[in-house]
Amino acid sequence: MSTAMINHRGPEFAALSARVTERLKYFFQTQSDVLIFTAAGTGALEVAVVNTISPGDKVLAVSIGVFGDRFANIAKRYGAKVTKLDFEWGKAADPDAIRRALAADPAIKAVLVTHNETSTGVTNDLAAISAIVREADKLLLVDAVSSLSAIDLPVDAWGCDVVATGSQKGWMVPPGLAMVSFSERAWQAYRACTTPRFYFDAGEAKRYQEKGQTPWTPALSLYFALDVALDLMMKEGRENIFARHARLAEKTRQGIEALGLTLFADRTHASNTVTAVKAPAGIPAKQISRAMREEEGVVIAAGQGRLENEIFRFGHLGYVNDSDIDEALAALARVCQRLGVPTLASRVN
Amino acid sequence: MSTAMINHRGPEFAALSARVTERLKYFFQTQSDVLIFTAAGTGALEVAVVNTISPGDKVLAVSIGVFGDRFANIAKRYGAKVTKLDFEWGKAADPDAIRRALAADPAIKAVLVTHNETSTGVTNDLAAISAIVREADKLLLVDAVSSLSAIDLPVDAWGCDVVATGSQKGWMVPPGLAMVSFSERAWQAYRACTTPRFYFDAGEAKRYQEKGQTPWTPALSLYFALDVALDLMMKEGRENIFARHARLAEKTRQGIEALGLTLFADRTHASNTVTAVKAPAGIPAKQISRAMREEEGVVIAAGQGRLENEIFRFGHLGYVNDSDIDEALAALARVCQRLGVPTLASRVN
Repeated sequence: MSTAMINHRGPEFAALSARVTERLKYFFQTQSDVLIFTAAGTGALEVAVVNTISPGDKVLAVSIGVFGDRFANIAKRYGAKVTKLDFEWGKAADPDAIRRALAADPAIKAVLVTHNETSTGVTNDLAAISAIVREADKLLLVDAVSSLSAIDLPVDAWGCDVVATGSQKGWMVPPGLAMVSFSERAWQAYRACTTPRFYFDAGEAKRYQEKGQTPWTPALSLYFALDVALDLMMKEGRENIFARHARLAEKTRQGIEALGLTLFADRTHASNTVTAVKAPAGIPAKQISRAMREEEGVVIAAGQGRLENEIFRFGHLGYVNDSDIDEALAALARVCQRLGVPTLASRVN
Repeated sequence: MSTAMINHRGPEFAALSARVTERLKYFFQTQSDVLIFTAAGTGALEVAVVNTISPGDKVLAVSIGVFGDRFANIAKRYGAKVTKLDFEWGKAADPDAIRRALAADPAIKAVLVTHNETSTGVTNDLAAISAIVREADKLLLVDAVSSLSAIDLPVDAWGCDVVATGSQKGWMVPPGLAMVSFSERAWQAYRACTTPRFYFDAGEAKRYQEKGQTPWTPALSLYFALDVALDLMMKEGRENIFARHARLAEKTRQGIEALGLTLFADRTHASNTVTAVKAPAGIPAKQISRAMREEEGVVIAAGQGRLENEIFRFGHLGYVNDSDIDEALAALARVCQRLGVPTLASRVN
């Protein structure tokens, strides 16, 4: 990242852009376009909406947590008629309920769905959901901010039309780049879309990408970092990365349960990138995350939204290995002991 | 920038955000809000428009080049009724013409103006323009992407309502952060503004800033860089920075003229951050910028838009000193000689 700046309209950037884009397509498992915007992951969600959904369009927004709500809110804000399909937090979306909702209103044009819900630690069954959406011939917009590259998501094979992710998750790069794929069907929707947009215009991004540029000045240092991260990722291999995340997530879940604590998410749909844990009775989650940070130097997250003090969450995605998990679990065991939480470990000792 | 990531909802980020914002206000010369968005400079312009201008609002867009046109286009894209006031490229805007345009249509609500036009190397007389806009009691939105912190712009003293800048210019930080000030009048306009917005919502940014956060994940590594850059800037001092830019710009202009080349911009409004030079007869500007890059390792820019091959441009803003200018001018002299340009130097030799 400390590489000196280059001219973003010059030949060095064109080569960098081509190199990065080619490998992003490999990890997106797509032959379609993958565009890069300088923005947070929420910017990637806005890209998905403002380029394909017009004011008055009916959309079905599937939500299992904070980020599903956010995706729905973006669509509402830009004038879509949003039918919200909410599921209990901690559970995955029920594909059959999505099928019924689509059958109930044939005017629905698009489905918005979160692949991996960071706020609850749940991964939706996107293979099943995408099959239903394809069968119903709707546009499928996917929030894959905290899954893509860490959890298998074959964009073309599952027929996902717009898939949005962010540099700071599985890509191991600091925040600031939003990467979004567009299928041919998404481009058709783009051409008909009347929502005003400028900074996040996907057509402009594609037009400039073809000449090795971005419409607006790109966050160059993050491109340099992404270039290196993709080197590491190609070396490890796509399937190996998925397997590592699955293995470390299972190790985390078992470690949590071994402490006598309770997992928040339905175990059959537990996320391989983030694990949510119920706060022990009488102890607010924030107290645990503060003790972990201040006493152990381990940064974990409390809950978001209405789960703020109900759960705490371990992120285990991107640049993470066995010893990270071991150390975090050992720190949690010590914190629980000091807070007087009756963990299995303290009971055994 | 290689500082390890921190929790952007934790206490370290809150301290960083407060520290950076406080010093940004000093350089903006404002007591009002300065908000930071993860985006390019064009994102900062979009922030200015979508938070204060509603569809159907009349705006006067003053343009002296590519970036003035872009600002006008953003307003048009979001449904404003734009009266465009164009001036010859290479010249500054005429304040009296702005006064007449405002008098001619009292329904105009806001004026959009570029402080420093990067595409032509001209700085508008914003002191005079802002006085006219204040007298007419219109909202004043300023593109200060390539001027703020390098050229004097006392935001409060001149009554500028929204002022937009980007990290990669005078701030000496890689691209990716957009900084935008909002006056009390701008917040009034915000509250009445009906343009849909989500990622670039200034009210959300302010609400989160007050608790030491950003609504969406910020580009942390660029915050770290900005923190260090502001240290350097505070040490040098605001007025000294302005003086250094003025001195180096004048040195550049004199060096260009000493080579027998012709400055593109009206000398009375020549920019202190970028100098545009007419390409010598028969030699496309791109040939000069390519030779500078490939033969001399000096990156300069050709023209933009319709000036693509008419001019080339030296940037001299941010982290720049006398020897940078000396070396670039010497390189240009050698390139001109090799290309057979009849410069004063070659004539003397």
